Formats: sequence, structure tokens, C-alpha cells
Amino acid sequence: MQLPKGVEWAAHCLVVLERLGESHPVPTSTLAEVYGLSPTYLNKHLQALSRHGLLISTPGSTGGFSLSRPAAEITLADVVEALDGDRTLFRCTEIRCDGLFQDRSAEIRASGACRIAAAMWQAEQAWRESLATVSINDLAGGIDALSGQNLNEFVGNKNRKAGQDI
Amino acid sequence: MQLPKGVEWAAHCLVVLERLGESHPVPTSTLAEVYGLSPTYLNKHLQALSRHGLLISTPGSTGGFSLSRPAAEITLADVVEALDGDRTLFRCTEIRCDGLFQDRSAEIRASGACRIAAAMWQAEQAWRESLATVSINDLAGGIDALSGQNLNEFVGNKNRKAGQDI
Ligand code: FES
Ligand code: FES
Repeated sequence: MQLPKGVEWAAHCLVVLERLGESHPVPTSTLAEVYGLSPTYLNKHLQALSRHGLLISTPGSTGGFSLSRPAAEITLADVVEALDGDRTLFRCTEIRCDGLFQDRSAEIRASGACRIAAAMWQAEQAWRESLATVSINDLAGGIDALSGQNLNEFVGNKNRKAGQDI
Repeated sequence: MQLPKGVEWAAHCLVVLERLGESHPVPTSTLAEVYGLSPTYLNKHLQALSRHGLLISTPGSTGGFSLSRPAAEITLADVVEALDGDRTLFRCTEIRCDGLFQDRSAEIRASGACRIAAAMWQAEQAWRESLATVSINDLAGGIDALSGQNLNEFVGNKNRKAGQDI
């Protein structure tokens, strides 16, 4: 079981958008160049972030993506949910009510959740809670000064070419 | 992303083996009947548990599976690792060293793990640690007295038919 590859791409792009400040929306093609990613795949992931309310998508020739809210209010739990959904990792098909136990299935269900399922889901909650403690703001602090400067120059040049600073 | 279906089956079978005590190995066909499962698929999962040292497999007509160690020393973390492997949920492809940052990739790597990857892996550790606190012994306490009795009678009859109690 592995998380979709897009989680790494999406988290990094959110950090880039935080680092660039709120001045202009950044097009997918620019974000893709920053990390040498496929623009087509990256766009799918950015659309998913947008559908989940983490990004705002501005259409048009000077359009692109920007953060929908302060980076301190976007966490890794939001990113995982946007890219992977909110289904539980563990699925319970209630086998405890099958086979030998079929006749007593109503009684067994009434006795509460299966202990196995409950323990599996409690562990998942610990995972999601840990992800929810880390914001894009926290992560952006990990970009060193020189990388931040490279990033700003690169995106600034791109935007100038696109006529955004007129 | 979802865990393999076998996790539910495997955890329940380990609980059944705990409830039955250590008297006889239980064949796959009997365990499959207990929960109305496909013997072929179940056997694949039981073999995985056996390869990971959680079960002992005894060959022959009166053979089957038994717990390899006390149920208090087998946890849900062991079950997940046996069925799903120990690869991390999150994969990092080091995109921070690509694109714009390619020239500084050695320097960036030398600065330590990416904060995004580190946070993702820390959350996984919380998940695995939570799974590791729950033993098969703890879970077996969730089988009610009547179910335990049904189980013992059913498996006892099967074994008698197979001539194990002579
Ligand atoms: S019945 Fe699904 S985990 Fe127990
Ligand atoms: S480079 Fe892989 S998560 Fe940051």
C-alpha cells in the first residue's frame, strides 16, 4: 500500500506558492519547471487540490494557481485527503458475522464495532492527527535562503515574460 | 490507498487460533469455513503470516496452522507488515533536487532529509506504533463466550472427523 505519487508533488508546490507570496497566480507550466515535473500529471494534482479548496485556480493567459488560505491553515492531512480521499486505510467487511456466526449476526453487530476494526481505525487516526499537526507554513521554513531566492527570480522572470508585471 | 483485504482475514484467523488453544494445528479449510472465506485466498494470507514467522505450518493430513508464539507477542503491526510489507506509505523521489535545484542537488541532500518526507514518515510511525500496542491476545478478549464455545465445538468436530483425537 502506497500513497499516490502526487502527494510529494502537491506538498512541494504548496510550499513553493507559500514562498512566492501572494502576488500572482502561478501557472502549472511554471510549477512543473521548478521541480522538473510532467505538466500534465502535475495539473491533475493541482486540480485535485483546487477541488478540495486548498488552491484557487485563476483562468486566462496570466492565470494559474494560488493558495486559497494562509499556509498555516493548510496541513499535510489536507493534502493527503485531497489526493487520496478520506476512505479508511483498513476496510472491514464484517466477516465476524459470516460463516459459523451467520445465525447470530444481528446480535454480534449489536454488541458494537469489531475490536480488530476499532484498533485499526484508531491507528489511522493517530496517522491523520500527526499529519494535521504539520502546516505548509512549517514546511516552507525548510526551504533555504538561496533556494528561496532562485525560486523568486525564476518565477519573477516567467511572469515578466507573460506580461504580468505591467 | 487501502490495505490489502487479507489484513482483516489474517487478524481474525490469528484470534481464532488463540481462542482454540494450542492443542492441534488447524487446516486452512477449517479456518475458511469459520468465517465463510475462500480457502484459496485465505491460504495465501496464512502462508504470508507463516513466512513472517507469525504462524507455524505443519504439513500432512492432520496438519495445519498454529501460532508460532504467545498471542500477547503478536501485534497488529506484525500482521500489517506480513500482509503489506514494510515499505513506507509515502515515497519520496527527491524532487527537491530536480528542475531549478539540480545544480545544487549535492548541497541540498547534505542538508538533511526533506521536511515534507520527514513529516510524512513521522506520521506513519505514529500509525505503526499504535498498531504495535494491540496484540492478538487483546483482540481475542473481544470474542464473546458463546462464539468461543461455537468455535471450539466446530473445530473439535472437524478434528475428530480427521482422526486427530485418537
Ligand atoms: S469483522 Fe471486520 S475487522 Fe472484524
Ligand atoms: S523531496 Fe521528496 S518529499 Fe521533499
